[in-house]
Amino acid sequence: MSLQSKQSEQGGQQEQSAVTIIGLGPMGRALAGAFLDAGLRTTVWNRTPGRDRELVGRGAVSAPSAEEAVAASGLIVVCVVNYDAVDAVLRRDAVAGALKGRTVVNLTADTPGRARDAAAWADGHGVRYLDGAIMTPTVTIGTPDAVLLYSGLEQLYREHRPVLDTLGGTHTHLGEKVCRAAAYDIALLDIFWTAMSGYHHALAVARAEGITARELAPFAAGIGTILPAIFEEVAEEVDEGTFSGEGNPLTSAASTMAHVVHHSEAHGVDAGIMRAAEGLARQAIGLGHGADGLHRVVELLGRKRGG
Amino acid sequence: MSLQSKQSEQGGQQEQSAVTIIGLGPMGRALAGAFLDAGLRTTVWNRTPGRDRELVGRGAVSAPSAEEAVAASGLIVVCVVNYDAVDAVLRRDAVAGALKGRTVVNLTADTPGRARDAAAWADGHGVRYLDGAIMTPTVTIGTPDAVLLYSGLEQLYREHRPVLDTLGGTHTHLGEKVCRAAAYDIALLDIFWTAMSGYHHALAVARAEGITARELAPFAAGIGTILPAIFEEVAEEVDEGTFSGEGNPLTSAASTMAHVVHHSEAHGVDAGIMRAAEGLARQAIGLGHGADGLHRVVELLGRKRGG
Ligand SMILES: NC(=O)c1ccc[n+]([C@@H]2O[C@H](COP(=O)([O-])OP(=O)(O)OC[C@H]3O[C@@H](n4cnc5c(N)ncnc54)[C@H](OP(=O)(O)O)[C@@H]3O)[C@@H](O)[C@H]2O)c1
Ligand SMILES: NC(=O)c1ccc[n+]([C@@H]2O[C@H](COP(=O)([O-])OP(=O)(O)OC[C@H]3O[C@@H](n4cnc5c(N)ncnc54)[C@H](OP(=O)(O)O)[C@@H]3O)[C@@H](O)[C@H]2O)c1
Repeated sequence: MSLQSKQSEQGGQQEQSAVTIIGLGPMGRALAGAFLDAGLRTTVWNRTPGRDRELVGRGAVSAPSAEEAVAASGLIVVCVVNYDAVDAVLRRDAVAGALKGRTVVNLTADTPGRARDAAAWADGHGVRYLDGAIMTPTVTIGTPDAVLLYSGLEQLYREHRPVLDTLGGTHTHLGEKVCRAAAYDIALLDIFWTAMSGYHHALAVARAEGITARELAPFAAGIGTILPAIFEEVAEEVDEGTFSGEGNPLTSAASTMAHVVHHSEAHGVDAGIMRAAEGLARQAIGLGHGADGLHRVVELLGRKRGG
Repeated sequence: MSLQSKQSEQGGQQEQSAVTIIGLGPMGRALAGAFLDAGLRTTVWNRTPGRDRELVGRGAVSAPSAEEAVAASGLIVVCVVNYDAVDAVLRRDAVAGALKGRTVVNLTADTPGRARDAAAWADGHGVRYLDGAIMTPTVTIGTPDAVLLYSGLEQLYREHRPVLDTLGGTHTHLGEKVCRAAAYDIALLDIFWTAMSGYHHALAVARAEGITARELAPFAAGIGTILPAIFEEVAEEVDEGTFSGEGNPLTSAASTMAHVVHHSEAHGVDAGIMRAAEGLARQAIGLGHGADGLHRVVELLGRKRGG
């Protein structure tokens, strides 16, 4: 039984089982696909036309304008490249007018400051606003592997939870401070893109030594596998303000980082990322923390300078 | 039954069941501990005296000099900070003389070039040489989670495999090219330290928004969990020379990287690592690859410039 028919039975909350997606990039299309699979009446709109062809084939309603897309549903999910794009779409008078009294769940990634700004604008225009962030790739949407974060009014979150749940996976409401989801998102994207950049660099360095990506990948995957436990351990120490380098002192870490830099550059491969990372490690050593673990740099980065 | 008694029964290869550890940093001590646990006659030496107290309490023999340490066993495992330190210990005449005819397994991390150099020196001094790298933290040694890589003569590897196996976990011989283990090591350390640096930075940025490390850690661990599969997928494409950005184009990645940079710097937190990563992404976009995935930077990094 689809969610739509379930809700109709439960008292005909027809409005709730309709959803509009603004933005049909890879992620917007994945979201729309999951809503369609759940049997929801799904209206779609994208700045550049034509991105909805496959979705329309699967039953989506293609709206000719953003204002008509908004008018079609009580819940508007927005997923575009950033909040400049969100503003370009939502802050036109016709769209703002159509949004009045409806709920926007903004799953676009941007900074906490932009999330606060969007919420303030929504508040000033009678728009109910929930901020959110998607932490997993498009292929996870509609599967148990999806991870979504939300922040804003809890009551609003609960109201729309049945529809949002059709996106699959784990949904976490991080609190009523509307910028919370964006703050987590930024931190988690920081980890993700930095790790991916390290991997890409490693593939370039390995290739320079005649090692293929497929040869390195299983070992790289092994590194990925040990990260979660290390992340949890480091978190304990960082919150406690202890920085034990007993198992692996900063001096040793900096030494291997230097090997990466020199080896990479000797092959003509830019090592700017590791240079920056090693620089922080060297600063921490210079400040007398050489026997600590590398996580001492968290303090260094957080330190307010001056006077 | 300990390995030692097993080997004695199998024909008394007494020499093989004795092992010497040069270097008693955190890792050297972990290695020595695992050898002791396996019942091997374990001789230890460290430049700075006193690091062997606990090991001696567990049955290790403390050698008064590096040459006496070397003379005590047929297999010498070296694990110091880098190859400068290896050379400082092994290349003294008395030690080089004592090493003649014995096997050095060098588990110190350094560059492939240094591994080649060490092997050449060993060859010139009648020392049997195997290079290796330890890919996991000290706590994994002696457990199924240890990961060790080796390169050099396969026959030598096989000969010492029974003793090395007592370190636990997965042992992989990467081939007879002696620099192979170091080349993998460098690439894998590149991934590990870059990812850790991204995590440390994320903790600093999260803290600036009032999010504790413990609050972020479970989600950070979630990012770690998805990396192995993504690493394998990216490897396929990199080897094929395809760089599909279908699920996540470079333009989108660069946009979120910029959010990290701006948000971090707005909080007074240095963002040099992400700045370097974003810079590569922007270069790839500038070269016309905006619709590709971020792994296009592997090509960019590998590109030979000039002419
Ligand atoms: N893809 C993933 O794996 C993933 C994972 C987690 C989170 N996210 C987040 O999800 C959001 C969407 O990502 P995506 O992967 O779908 O691709 P994207 O490239 O980040 O965004 C593309 C979408 O943004 C629209 N857009 C860009 N500028 C616009 C403007 N000025 N006005 C109106 N629309 C504009 C595009 O419309 P046009 O077609 O007209 O250009 C398209 O719909 C991003 O914030 C991303 O960080 C993505
Ligand atoms: N710890 C880990 O989790 C880990 C994981 C994988 C691989 N590794 C690798 O294992 C190796 C050893 O690491 P570690 O963790 O034990 O600590 P480390 O700090 O990298 O190395 C410390 C050892 O190096 C010795 N040393 C330094 N300079 C020396 C010199 N000039 N002459 C002689 N000895 C010198 C130290 O002797 P003193 O006591 O006299 O200073 C001590 O025995 C490194 O290559 C490291 O990258 C470590």
